[in-house]
Amino acid sequence: MTKHGLQRVIVEHVTPEIDAGRFYIKKIPGETIGVEADIFTDGHDHVRGQVLYKHESDKNWLRVPMHLMSNDRWQGSFNVEKTGFYSYTVTGWVDHPLTWHEGFVKKYQDTQHMGVELLIGAEFLEAMLPRASKPDQKTINKIVATLRDENKYDLAVNLVLGKDVHHLIDQYPNLENATTYLRELKVYVDREKAGFSSWYCFFPRSASTVEGKHGTFKDCEALLPRIAEMGFDVLYFPPIHPIGQTFRKGKNNTVNALPGDDGVPYAIGSKDGGHKDILKDLGTLDDFKHLIKEAAAHGLEIAMDFAIQCSPDHPYVKKHPKWFKWRPDGTVQYAENPPKKYQDILPVNFENDDWENLWKELKSILDYWCEQGIRIFRVDNPHTKSFNFWEWCIAEVQKKYPGTIFLSEAFTKPKVMKELAKLGYTQSYTYYTWRNSKHELIEYMNELTQSEMKDYYRPNFWPNTHDINPYSLQNGNEISFITRYVMAATLSSNYGIFGPVYELMYHDAYPGKEEYLNSEKYEVRHWDWSAKNRLIDVITKVNAARKANAALQTTYNISFCETYNDNILAYYKRTGDNHILCVVKLDPYSKQFAHVQTPLWELGIEAGQDFSVYDILTGNTYTWNQEWNYVQFEPWDLPVHLFRIEV
Amino acid sequence: MTKHGLQRVIVEHVTPEIDAGRFYIKKIPGETIGVEADIFTDGHDHVRGQVLYKHESDKNWLRVPMHLMSNDRWQGSFNVEKTGFYSYTVTGWVDHPLTWHEGFVKKYQDTQHMGVELLIGAEFLEAMLPRASKPDQKTINKIVATLRDENKYDLAVNLVLGKDVHHLIDQYPNLENATTYLRELKVYVDREKAGFSSWYCFFPRSASTVEGKHGTFKDCEALLPRIAEMGFDVLYFPPIHPIGQTFRKGKNNTVNALPGDDGVPYAIGSKDGGHKDILKDLGTLDDFKHLIKEAAAHGLEIAMDFAIQCSPDHPYVKKHPKWFKWRPDGTVQYAENPPKKYQDILPVNFENDDWENLWKELKSILDYWCEQGIRIFRVDNPHTKSFNFWEWCIAEVQKKYPGTIFLSEAFTKPKVMKELAKLGYTQSYTYYTWRNSKHELIEYMNELTQSEMKDYYRPNFWPNTHDINPYSLQNGNEISFITRYVMAATLSSNYGIFGPVYELMYHDAYPGKEEYLNSEKYEVRHWDWSAKNRLIDVITKVNAARKANAALQTTYNISFCETYNDNILAYYKRTGDNHILCVVKLDPYSKQFAHVQTPLWELGIEAGQDFSVYDILTGNTYTWNQEWNYVQFEPWDLPVHLFRIEV
Repeated sequence: MTKHGLQRVIVEHVTPEIDAGRFYIKKIPGETIGVEADIFTDGHDHVRGQVLYKHESDKNWLRVPMHLMSNDRWQGSFNVEKTGFYSYTVTGWVDHPLTWHEGFVKKYQDTQHMGVELLIGAEFLEAMLPRASKPDQKTINKIVATLRDENKYDLAVNLVLGKDVHHLIDQYPNLENATTYLRELKVYVDREKAGFSSWYCFFPRSASTVEGKHGTFKDCEALLPRIAEMGFDVLYFPPIHPIGQTFRKGKNNTVNALPGDDGVPYAIGSKDGGHKDILKDLGTLDDFKHLIKEAAAHGLEIAMDFAIQCSPDHPYVKKHPKWFKWRPDGTVQYAENPPKKYQDILPVNFENDDWENLWKELKSILDYWCEQGIRIFRVDNPHTKSFNFWEWCIAEVQKKYPGTIFLSEAFTKPKVMKELAKLGYTQSYTYYTWRNSKHELIEYMNELTQSEMKDYYRPNFWPNTHDINPYSLQNGNEISFITRYVMAATLSSNYGIFGPVYELMYHDAYPGKEEYLNSEKYEVRHWDWSAKNRLIDVITKVNAARKANAALQTTYNISFCETYNDNILAYYKRTGDNHILCVVKLDPYSKQFAHVQTPLWELGIEAGQDFSVYDILTGNTYTWNQEWNYVQFEPWDLPVHLFRIEV
Repeated sequence: MTKHGLQRVIVEHVTPEIDAGRFYIKKIPGETIGVEADIFTDGHDHVRGQVLYKHESDKNWLRVPMHLMSNDRWQGSFNVEKTGFYSYTVTGWVDHPLTWHEGFVKKYQDTQHMGVELLIGAEFLEAMLPRASKPDQKTINKIVATLRDENKYDLAVNLVLGKDVHHLIDQYPNLENATTYLRELKVYVDREKAGFSSWYCFFPRSASTVEGKHGTFKDCEALLPRIAEMGFDVLYFPPIHPIGQTFRKGKNNTVNALPGDDGVPYAIGSKDGGHKDILKDLGTLDDFKHLIKEAAAHGLEIAMDFAIQCSPDHPYVKKHPKWFKWRPDGTVQYAENPPKKYQDILPVNFENDDWENLWKELKSILDYWCEQGIRIFRVDNPHTKSFNFWEWCIAEVQKKYPGTIFLSEAFTKPKVMKELAKLGYTQSYTYYTWRNSKHELIEYMNELTQSEMKDYYRPNFWPNTHDINPYSLQNGNEISFITRYVMAATLSSNYGIFGPVYELMYHDAYPGKEEYLNSEKYEVRHWDWSAKNRLIDVITKVNAARKANAALQTTYNISFCETYNDNILAYYKRTGDNHILCVVKLDPYSKQFAHVQTPLWELGIEAGQDFSVYDILTGNTYTWNQEWNYVQFEPWDLPVHLFRIEV
């Protein structure tokens, strides 16, 4: 008989729980974890439940009571305040005193004689003494004496019906035969930037203000005020390492580079070194560390690119031949997607005997840059590297350098993207880039915020990247650039743009592809870093609004509002008493109008009662007093109302 | 580094899996288990998967290949042939030779030179040698020699493109770095009756043909031919044990019995004994064993009632006072639902120090009756006894007496009913008794057959029981009795009726309740066991049809057909080449008609092609040749077409 015969309560189906506890869920400090469980017992006795939780630095469980929702489903919640791991689980027990108390009331109302009932109650109360506080022990003893005194029958009955006894039952449950859920579950609490971040990406080699000159870290420093003014807080650079010569690619991904072509930063490694080295044209390690500090002074954190692949000239190829695939003809295997060949790139072969040393070396690259002051990595194509490696590597780096953020640049199949997030990636790229219609946007947001993904997958929305010039922006229409930007920055609390391409609305495409023409991946470009336009103004205002409005600092508080117009998307986000209503025109060309259903029930407003909506982008204030409110957009208007609702 | 660095495949979300493998799924011999899993790897290499399974008597895993459905979801299936436990799990691996082969074809079509590719292929093939059969080793060696011979380039390329190489790749995968799912899952294979059974319940004490006489087992024997003729195969009796005297209930559940009242069979235990004894009025143990044999000769298996509760006169009360709750006034706690009291029944208190002896004694009751030849128990109110007890007890009894069937008589909250099924109950009562409208019936059937319940919850449909005279039958309408019966017996492969009440269409209700007036629970009744009527004829034909048509022998093969009439329910069941279409009129009073959408696509029939439908209940045959076919029911017609479709 392996079961404890006295445990009568079942506790099961605890949520959040990812794959039976195989993976942890993710939160940031201050967030609440709502835990649910099925809790029930045989028969008709009352049950109760608690959530148990503790931070990894705590010794004992903290407990919060759960309440019954319906149909044996219970809920309780706790807040996480510290970073690091928390554990949580659920316990449930049969509450005999509560069952007795409910029966007592019913029998009393049925005018039965309560003699035995009082004695039963006295026994339950006495059993609480060892668990009770000193003052409550006094109370208990007093009540018990009355319950046992036949001459005080009426007083005793009234005592039981009074609030003290109920309070004691609530306060001092007997957990001796409680059932605790069979698994302890984990939450990893990241620092705040994991949940709320505004990324700006550019190629440092295009940072020079002098046309034809290779940009340097010094040039980058000069751009910091501009990027900080727009309101970004993460500055992400594609790889800054030495670039291979062998099979170097030319402009627009041509197979052979011409003399003077600068090559592809993703073809990492040359005689000058590999992943721990810096391309000389950009500057020195000291220059880079200086840039990190300067950026920090502007409220900007530098994110590095971690791309596990080598040019044929990378020192690893000679030093660690086992880490690559070799062909029977003695040549090293380059990347390919048959029949296409990518001879400038050697993929690392994770299936090799020396995998432990490979793992250690790869991790040491991250350790090295952490030592230089980096705490954010955007990982290039993580879905083409070993899953097991990522789980180990991310955990190890975060153990040594708490607060390190990993962004997964995986644009691939849904299950693979999800797996990377479950294995430890802090943030993940998404399909947002290709979600354009109202139906697609709502469906995708609901998947991200209402499905299990909400517990482990932190979306980071990018309207463009240096790899993607989406068809929806290739028209160069200013309205499209504004809507795609504003939606990224208000649907998701984490977002980024690839600039200055984005804010300058550069949109020339490599013919037939979602790639930029004359892409900076293959050449140095020169930009007008001093330009001003309406989009830059919107970016600046939206980033300021994100900082000022808590409702824009999480992705998970969204609900969509009815508009009965497929070209007008409206959504409401609320955090505490901060209420944001965003109305976006999806059609870039025509006039559109609609009545937007405003969630008065969330605002605590009755129809007929005046309230103001303040448009953060225009500074206009409107007074509304109905549930359905009219909005219209002329073709030349800003295609967005970003309303703060004043209640 | 705890992870094996060479495993690149993820295997997760295996189904069927109940609560992360905490519970086993259930099957009967001959059934198929379709196993699904997410299987994928990093990058673009091909993966493959297998289901591994073995019977508890097998030493080694058997393997079946899986195939990709879509979106990284794979499927494979195996049949269970033996009773007892099977284990199953899933394994997946990167198939490098397959990836190479696909690349080979593409490069060949791109007219690349295949020199190195042939050498790579030779290496893959050579690596298969240790796993290959003798004849295949010869083939491999021959192919490898050609692939390595520069003078046979064209022949070698054609060899690779031919079917042999592909076959070898398929046949001899390298599983060295395969990933096996982290859990082994269990199936319990019951004997066939667990999945296909027709129950008939009556009170043996009402079996006498002489009015006013207490029925005996001998009287029961005389009824066996009648019950067998109707086609039942399980004969279930309410408790047959000594009945208590103290607080004995009178007719219609009155509080005090009159002299001569026979009491309630559920108030088990008197000075004559308890759960291992037989009520003297029914006969002796030998009589009972004789009845078991006689029943078996008629194809009927006796099911006993297991009701864990005692009358105040049960020997346990004196011998094992710890097994009951005692009140501070020295009296024993009777059953109650405050303010109601049930003083004739003492519940067993599972929360007692002596629980191990209680568990053993309760199990010994089942062991005792198994020794007498019983292998089916209907368990009374299992939801008011300890869950842990049931899990242990059912497993132990089934270990000692394989094939023992337990029917859970829990009419309670959904999660409790499900839990009992998960813990081991072979079959379970359902909400069918109260599902009357078309919408309710379809929704409930879909829950039972399409949700996870299909893997562990075997429904047993009862239109009435000795505890339930449902409102829907209290009208006494013959059409209602026929439809409720036929649906029970054709929607569900396990079903039962409480007779002869049901087939005699007795429907007098205790006023305002879903209980029978003059219920046999409180008195001996006298019935006309020789009566004949249209319902009995339907029962006989339906039970015969169930035996003759495999499609009616499982619950899980159902799909509903459109009729565009809320009063006409139609469903199609198929097993192999046996096709059943059942059309039921739900309205007991009026004429109803509809066109029924016939699933021609399942039948392999084109519109316009003639096919016959044979009505098993009337013997009529109709020729149809369209997808939508007209049916009508006059008020006096049988309210059901039970069609066998001839294809």
